[in-house]
Amino acid sequence: MRADLPIGVFDSGIGGLTVLRELMALLPGESYLYLGDTARLPYGTKSPETVIRYALGAGQFLVARGIKVLVVACNTASATALPALQAALAVPVVGVVEPAARVAAAVAQRAVGVLGTESTVASGVYQHLLAALRPELSVLSQACPLFVPLAEEGWFDHPITQQVAQLYLSPLRQAGVDTVILGCTHYPLLAAPIARALGPQVTLINAGQAVAEEVKATLHARQLFASRSQGEVELWVTDAAPRVRRLASVIIPQVGERLALVDLGNGAKGEQSQRGVAYAPC
Amino acid sequence: MRADLPIGVFDSGIGGLTVLRELMALLPGESYLYLGDTARLPYGTKSPETVIRYALGAGQFLVARGIKVLVVACNTASATALPALQAALAVPVVGVVEPAARVAAAVAQRAVGVLGTESTVASGVYQHLLAALRPELSVLSQACPLFVPLAEEGWFDHPITQQVAQLYLSPLRQAGVDTVILGCTHYPLLAAPIARALGPQVTLINAGQAVAEEVKATLHARQLFASRSQGEVELWVTDAAPRVRRLASVIIPQVGERLALVDLGNGAKGEQSQRGVAYAPC
Repeated sequence: MRADLPIGVFDSGIGGLTVLRELMALLPGESYLYLGDTARLPYGTKSPETVIRYALGAGQFLVARGIKVLVVACNTASATALPALQAALAVPVVGVVEPAARVAAAVAQRAVGVLGTESTVASGVYQHLLAALRPELSVLSQACPLFVPLAEEGWFDHPITQQVAQLYLSPLRQAGVDTVILGCTHYPLLAAPIARALGPQVTLINAGQAVAEEVKATLHARQLFASRSQGEVELWVTDAAPRVRRLASVIIPQVGERLALVDLGNGAKGEQSQRGVAYAPC
Repeated sequence: MRADLPIGVFDSGIGGLTVLRELMALLPGESYLYLGDTARLPYGTKSPETVIRYALGAGQFLVARGIKVLVVACNTASATALPALQAALAVPVVGVVEPAARVAAAVAQRAVGVLGTESTVASGVYQHLLAALRPELSVLSQACPLFVPLAEEGWFDHPITQQVAQLYLSPLRQAGVDTVILGCTHYPLLAAPIARALGPQVTLINAGQAVAEEVKATLHARQLFASRSQGEVELWVTDAAPRVRRLASVIIPQVGERLALVDLGNGAKGEQSQRGVAYAPC
């Protein structure tokens, strides 16, 4: 494995850029190759078998281009496809679920809330991990299907988002959770209304920061740190509708203009091959 | 073409069941073969090239199974993929856009509002058709990206849906539109809050009814009416997550239990092939 290879980051869409942002902040000397499977998002409402098939295609694409670590910056894919990815790929694979669960287990007092898509919540993956780490914690999960469309609408701190947060989160507040895992990469964009709905005593866990620390530890253990001072970022998506570019630029400024399109060759083909348009990657 | 063949109905998901419901009411002697591409929905936020590719795959699947007419019960696919489908398939293809535009042109007084997904609105297809039919009408479009997730959450007549409708539709109300096209098959599920937000003077156009009349005319012109008194319905989806079954049953009672899974062979493969589970079609 070569230390100068980029770190691969994969998400169903561009919510995973909240994870890339944390990686770039903690490990600025690394290069990154990001793939958002925007032609087939969202994963969170699809069945595990479909998510596994899509995740394998994306992972194989990134490994074929040359990466030294794969970060699965998607809770749904981390919750359902991590064993399949680890079995199929020849690079270390880091998901967002385990690091976030470990941080929550380290800081929680009594009760943890888990927010996620329907499929992440249905998978029970956070409950299982937290039960293994600290069996005395009580864990309460809440699917929040409207949070991703609200974030994609750009209503990050909007009165309607606040009301939806209040509705979804009142069971957690009533149960007295002290720590809440933002179990979807879009949710850090809604941190303000989520925090207000939960009250000031609650600690929010942003998986992106936990993942960045985990990747740093992985690179350290394998002596794979890049030697440069400033890395590069290449961004690929399977569909580049205007809303994709717009939201990407909200998460990482100017990044929307730098998205490149890629054909995964199995139903997730972007515009590139049809139009012959070559968007310059970063 | 055999008159006893079923009518094919295709949508990106199960919103198109609102169209199937109208077809079954108007033409109860016909049989129907419905395909919802739930593994790859939503289409409304994807680029035209991706939508065309997905629609062709779905249309080819239905034609291969044997249908006498294809109804594209999806505004996004009708707005972007109809010429490609008509060129590629050997059966008449009826979209939802033209019939709805014709009804709107027939009843509108002065100003028409068009509600749709981002891609339907961006395509300008309703404006072009209305301009051709009645150039003196003013037409105002509004993308409503949160309506589909709100409908899928089951919040059909919910205070939050009402507020979102008020926000999206106040420009149309202020402009004094007298007729509004529900330019997405999910929107009839939100007819109550939409009607309240627009006020009592506004006529809502449900494309499903217009399409059913168009299909009836097509069958009449080609002498393709089925001779039986009661037809059958077969329903296929590319991914059958619990929410798909739940929402399907809201639109057509008990239908959720009768969804069958299908593998389109290009990244939209359902659970069936992996699990070996055979859901009994209707």
